[in-house]
Amino acid sequence: MRHSQQYVVGLVFYPGMTALDIIGPQTVFSALPGIQIHRIWKTLDPIQTDDGMRIIPDTTFDNCPPLDIICIGGGLAQSAVVDDPEILAFLRQQGSMAKFVTSVCGGSEFLARAGLLQGYRSATHWMFREQLAAAGVQVSTERVVIDRDRMSGGGVTAGIDFGLELAKVLYGEETAKMIQLLIEYDPAPPFDVGSPEKAGADLVNKAMLYAAEALNLKVK
Amino acid sequence: MRHSQQYVVGLVFYPGMTALDIIGPQTVFSALPGIQIHRIWKTLDPIQTDDGMRIIPDTTFDNCPPLDIICIGGGLAQSAVVDDPEILAFLRQQGSMAKFVTSVCGGSEFLARAGLLQGYRSATHWMFREQLAAAGVQVSTERVVIDRDRMSGGGVTAGIDFGLELAKVLYGEETAKMIQLLIEYDPAPPFDVGSPEKAGADLVNKAMLYAAEALNLKVK
Repeated sequence: MRHSQQYVVGLVFYPGMTALDIIGPQTVFSALPGIQIHRIWKTLDPIQTDDGMRIIPDTTFDNCPPLDIICIGGGLAQSAVVDDPEILAFLRQQGSMAKFVTSVCGGSEFLARAGLLQGYRSATHWMFREQLAAAGVQVSTERVVIDRDRMSGGGVTAGIDFGLELAKVLYGEETAKMIQLLIEYDPAPPFDVGSPEKAGADLVNKAMLYAAEALNLKVK
Repeated sequence: MRHSQQYVVGLVFYPGMTALDIIGPQTVFSALPGIQIHRIWKTLDPIQTDDGMRIIPDTTFDNCPPLDIICIGGGLAQSAVVDDPEILAFLRQQGSMAKFVTSVCGGSEFLARAGLLQGYRSATHWMFREQLAAAGVQVSTERVVIDRDRMSGGGVTAGIDFGLELAKVLYGEETAKMIQLLIEYDPAPPFDVGSPEKAGADLVNKAMLYAAEALNLKVK
């Protein structure tokens, strides 16, 4: 199968990011024909994700070519870099030219701070909804949101749904379906508690306390 | 929330593995209290996953402590290493002591070749079912399979379901539910074609041709 289109995809990496936010869509993108993927950070030094794994970026902000699709995810330590002027300048610069400006999970917060989401609808991790709304973004509780040239996924695992939806937009249904089958995406979650609406107030409160403690442990 | 139990988890990394196979469960495991995660390979040199990303292992076969849980995933280039005697010896050695010997996707093939799955039921990626059955394993089409001290997930994205099921076994329902909510695992696949049974013969054939071509491109 040949596809005449060539897309240049940029995934922004940073210390303390949640690997799965970005590895979900990366898995889908890397299965698409004619895709060039860049894993981008300030330097080519390894970054550590919030689950303790070290990944080596392959592209820097300075040597990154113009991107058709730019994507940034969230992370337990994103608050440490969410106002970083170099990151925000890079997002603004690439975002002004990209075909799609995208995020997964708390990555929406970076786009909002770069001024790229004002007046747009966006998904985000459920814990970031209020914060994102306060930044002037029309926050949606949908799992994947497309609003003109902005695309976003909800928390962490939503990156897989996001990636497949983007594959559908760029390459059509048949290719997206093949990739869904190849990554055997026929989910069978053990419980029906994957969103705050389904989980209920009691579990939401426990999860927030648990996350606060985990965050504290990671920061130490 | 304190948990008295401490588990040592070993994730086997290798060149050409599919990152998502292992990052799915790693995301779940890293959110559990009292877990120590090792990313293991022959050396501490970076390995490149089959989507082109470079990851740095933090533990070698030689310096790895005894593992409570050992897990190996599949990958587009797994055939290049699936008979590697060092990998198989490591799996055998650790597998003889571990509380759970586990795999995601084509990782089941490594366990079978190490002699760790004969007489057991196991899930695998749908493309590996016949091959695994030929190795004397009772292949299941379930997404996650628990058979005594063996646990396995189906293809690629099944690693998330697998991770949550293992979290339930080790830490109980409430903790597993909190983590499912924290990683917002409320999947919304764009199509209902995530298994060969659901996809139908036509899409399965197309996907197999597509994968064969992708494999060829990766191998070059």
